[in-house]
Amino acid sequence: MFRQATRLFNSVSTSSIVGKVGLGRLNHVAIAVPNMSEATSLYRDVMGAQVSEPVDQKEHGVTTVFVALDNTKIELLHPLGENSPIANFLKKNPSGGVHHVCIEVDDINAAVKTLLDKQVKIIDPNPKIGAHGKPVVFLHPKAMNGVMVELEEK
Amino acid sequence: MFRQATRLFNSVSTSSIVGKVGLGRLNHVAIAVPNMSEATSLYRDVMGAQVSEPVDQKEHGVTTVFVALDNTKIELLHPLGENSPIANFLKKNPSGGVHHVCIEVDDINAAVKTLLDKQVKIIDPNPKIGAHGKPVVFLHPKAMNGVMVELEEK
Repeated sequence: MFRQATRLFNSVSTSSIVGKVGLGRLNHVAIAVPNMSEATSLYRDVMGAQVSEPVDQKEHGVTTVFVALDNTKIELLHPLGENSPIANFLKKNPSGGVHHVCIEVDDINAAVKTLLDKQVKIIDPNPKIGAHGKPVVFLHPKAMNGVMVELEEK
Repeated sequence: MFRQATRLFNSVSTSSIVGKVGLGRLNHVAIAVPNMSEATSLYRDVMGAQVSEPVDQKEHGVTTVFVALDNTKIELLHPLGENSPIANFLKKNPSGGVHHVCIEVDDINAAVKTLLDKQVKIIDPNPKIGAHGKPVVFLHPKAMNGVMVELEEK
């Protein structure tokens, strides 16, 4: 009886108790750019991609332009106003660079629970409404091989 | 007659003579990682993604693991052997980071011609056979808002 219970306990790993995050689609790759009109022209006029009009997202401190690829999109980001979350990034990377990648998950709260239980550092574990009107969290680059990963609920 | 010719010339922009690159699918986002087994475990065991076995690509100086997302993939890269093209990247970015993004194009030679005509810097404008057996070129990060962009023929 005791041996059976021990075996049962051993067979249930921490992983299966906590669940997994469950990555879905890559929603976008976000690139911080020092000059939005030049970056837009590069993707539209040289690369031949469809690009959106620029949209000022005051509550997020960024102006965004979306570049359509066949299966996902690139999000060009430029700082808007003071205290923009990408101003420091552009100070450190004056040419620009990949600011984050955004991956969809089915259930943001379940994903956060799993990540906290597995001690993966989340910048703010309380989901906020992101630029697409859906709840998001950002995982810390130090926990994700130097890449800031945004998880967005589908 | 003269005016007609002038008008005709003006209506043909440089852009339409040279053509456009024509971006297709985002093939992958490549992330350089300092520890391949930890990175693989993070994506497989915590995130719940399907990951490939590691493959040593000696001719490219990297070991690769692919992480399947619903619409594209993440390519984890770790240096292999001496003179790995990502060894310097990891020296500058010890936690890792996005090394490049790879976008598909219909015709790599046409894309290169357009980019050279438009003075977009290509690291080596002679396409080479990449890790997936298809011709590729790499666009210089300075020309692409700090992001190294690999173009791969479909």
